[in-house]
Parts: sequence; C-alpha cells; structure tokens
Amino acid sequence: MPENSVPTARTRVVREPHRGVYDRATAYQILDEGFVCQIGFAVDGQPFVIPTGYGRAGDNLYVHGSVASRMLRNLSQGVPVCLTVTLLDGLVLARSIFNHSMNYRSVVVLGTAVAVTDPQEKTQALRAISEHILPGRWLESRQPNEKELKATAVMRLPITEFSSKVREGPPIDDEEDYEFPTWAGVIPLQMVAGQPIPDQRLDPSRPVPEYAQQYFRQR
Amino acid sequence: MPENSVPTARTRVVREPHRGVYDRATAYQILDEGFVCQIGFAVDGQPFVIPTGYGRAGDNLYVHGSVASRMLRNLSQGVPVCLTVTLLDGLVLARSIFNHSMNYRSVVVLGTAVAVTDPQEKTQALRAISEHILPGRWLESRQPNEKELKATAVMRLPITEFSSKVREGPPIDDEEDYEFPTWAGVIPLQMVAGQPIPDQRLDPSRPVPEYAQQYFRQR
Repeated sequence: MPENSVPTARTRVVREPHRGVYDRATAYQILDEGFVCQIGFAVDGQPFVIPTGYGRAGDNLYVHGSVASRMLRNLSQGVPVCLTVTLLDGLVLARSIFNHSMNYRSVVVLGTAVAVTDPQEKTQALRAISEHILPGRWLESRQPNEKELKATAVMRLPITEFSSKVREGPPIDDEEDYEFPTWAGVIPLQMVAGQPIPDQRLDPSRPVPEYAQQYFRQR
Repeated sequence: MPENSVPTARTRVVREPHRGVYDRATAYQILDEGFVCQIGFAVDGQPFVIPTGYGRAGDNLYVHGSVASRMLRNLSQGVPVCLTVTLLDGLVLARSIFNHSMNYRSVVVLGTAVAVTDPQEKTQALRAISEHILPGRWLESRQPNEKELKATAVMRLPITEFSSKVREGPPIDDEEDYEFPTWAGVIPLQMVAGQPIPDQRLDPSRPVPEYAQQYFRQR
C-alpha cells in the first residue's frame, strides 16, 4: 500500500480538478467503506453498467457471480472494464441553483479483469468478498462445496490505474449570492442498517449475532 | 406511462431471470426513488462509469453537468450509453455462503443521449433534476442566469430500451441447509438523512425549511 497513483490521461479528474485525489490511502478507504460497485464493460460498442458486490485483498479487487451471468462471461474474455464505487454523503444546498452540489466520495478503477482459476485463490477471494461485506459471517456459514465453487466465477481486477474524487463541506456560493434570502447548508446522508429480520424458518431462540445487530460501514 | 417494455436481447435479464421486471411502473418507481445514477460510456473501447444526479420528466431522463466535463463532452457526440440506478435494500444472510445475497432494485436504461439545446427545455430539464433530488428547492433558490445556463450542458436520454431487476424477501437456502446451526435472515439497509447543517455564513435566525428537515425518498 505504498506509492501514490500518477493519474493517466484516462483517470485524471478533468472537471473540478481540485476534487481529484490520487493516493492509494484515500482510494482504499473509499473501496473498503463501500461494498457495492458498478462494473462497466462494452459489448459491440454498447456499454453496460451492472451493480455487484466486491471485496479487496491487498492491491486487488475481486468480484464474483454465476458462471452463467452475462457480465462474467464478458469480463472473462479480458475486455477493458471500469469499476466505480460511489459513497453519497450529503446534499449541498447553495443559494443559487447553479452551485447546488452533493458531497460524495468515488473511486474509478480502470483495467482488465482476469478470471481466477487457482482453487485456493478462488476460495480466498470469495472469503475476501464475504468478509468485506459482512465481517465475521464467513466462518459461521456453511462453506462452499465443490459444485458451488464450480458454478461461481471469480474475477480479479488489479488496482493499478485509478483515481478518486471527493467533495465535502459547505456550499460555495458566488460572493454576491450570500445575501440571497434562502436557507443554505448540507443535508447529511448515510446508509443505515435497521433491525435484523430473522428468517421465518429460523429457530426463534437463536440470537442475532453481533455482526448483524450492529451493522455499519467504517468510515 | 402505458405499455410494458419488451426486453431486447440486450436488456433481458439472463441470470436469475425471475428477478427481471419489464414494466414501466416498476422502472419509474425505482428511477423516482433514486437520484444518483451511474452513466457508462466507452471512449476508444475503454468504458467509463461516472456517478451523477439525474431527473425524470415523463419518458425521458435528464442529466446535466459542466460543458467542460469529459462525460458530457463524450455523451454529446451521440455515443451509446447505459444509465444504471441501484437501490440497496438489505443484506441477505443465508445458511450457506453460496446463497448469500442482497436485496436491491436496479434499472438499466440503454440508448443514445441527445444534447438539449432549446432554452425552454433546458430550463425545464434543470428544474426536473432539481425537483427530483430535492422537491421544493427550485423556487427558493437564486435562479440560473444566462451565463450559468451557457456553462451547463443538459442531455436527454429517452426511456425506451430498459429493464429492472429486483430481489426482495428472505434468504432461499437449499433444503438440506435449513438445519445448519447459524443465524439467517435479512439486515435491512436504508439511506437516511441526518440533521441539516446550516452554512456558517447563514443568518442563524433563518429556519431550516421543511423539505430539508424531513428529507427522505418515497418508496
């Protein structure tokens, strides 16, 4: 987790360049807080953007899915992909419509995903995805069997070409607008977990595990 | 808002086909509840996925941004795009790792975005985006002036080729796993607004408007 990324022409933030952030620590914090990414890939020139869970292990991202899925069948052909993670932190209400904005943190990773075929790396990747989404769950679940592993495709995307974009803080209005008679500020937004809902077929005496009871994403 | 969409080969849900939904009412409910989309477009074969706000007016989606932004410069060339909206509703904890899932609702819209040049449609589109994200705010803000409108690009994407994908409800385990000794159920997730934070330069006697005080997305 050493060096910073030198932005390429493709990852350099063009608009609002002061919001572009290129160090790994920032990108990894965002990637670790999020757990749903959007994967973009093109088929015959038509882009597709598909939401999916992911995990990070070191300098690699992992995604998984059914070997029958369109996305994974396409990715496994070694096409260029874009993996984007977006965390929404708030609505920014400026005096002028023009200066309204959102507070957010996003990471864009470009590259080519590679199918993970080594059985050990595959299981480790699935564990990384599981622990990334819900730490503590992997060991308390029935482990994957051979048939299930065979039906699951896992792809690795190295975090090589990437950039983050971050907007935070209050609205920035034009100086002459500060006297405009309207409220201005930030409405904070956050993803919050509710009370866990036990499965109807669950023994009612089984307690809700702590990792499900107090679920939150570390910022 | 009448007919259903006949899925094309490109929008038909391949994996978990029972989760594919093709009626406009479902897609519009998801599009209206969300307000951040992910836009996918390809440049020289490299896909990019960029988060941005959006609005809906009738059977059209609108996005906007700086005329200087890379995304809008690319979109305005009439390239194929994919606009995806994802709402995350919960983590689904099954007995087996393999059957873990998420509850979510997503919409994928494919097509070609068109630059809005008519000044009246442009203002209406900006108003649609603003009212989509924060109903009531438009009229209480300083309206866009000519210079700002000139600096803003607005794109229209007709909702023609689209599909939704919905997963809801409890985990579905293999029959032989129901006795496996672990907790199972759903951790509900929701985006929640916090207490609005007034701008430091705001007259402290100005009350928080109701639309900011009780912000939520209608399901």
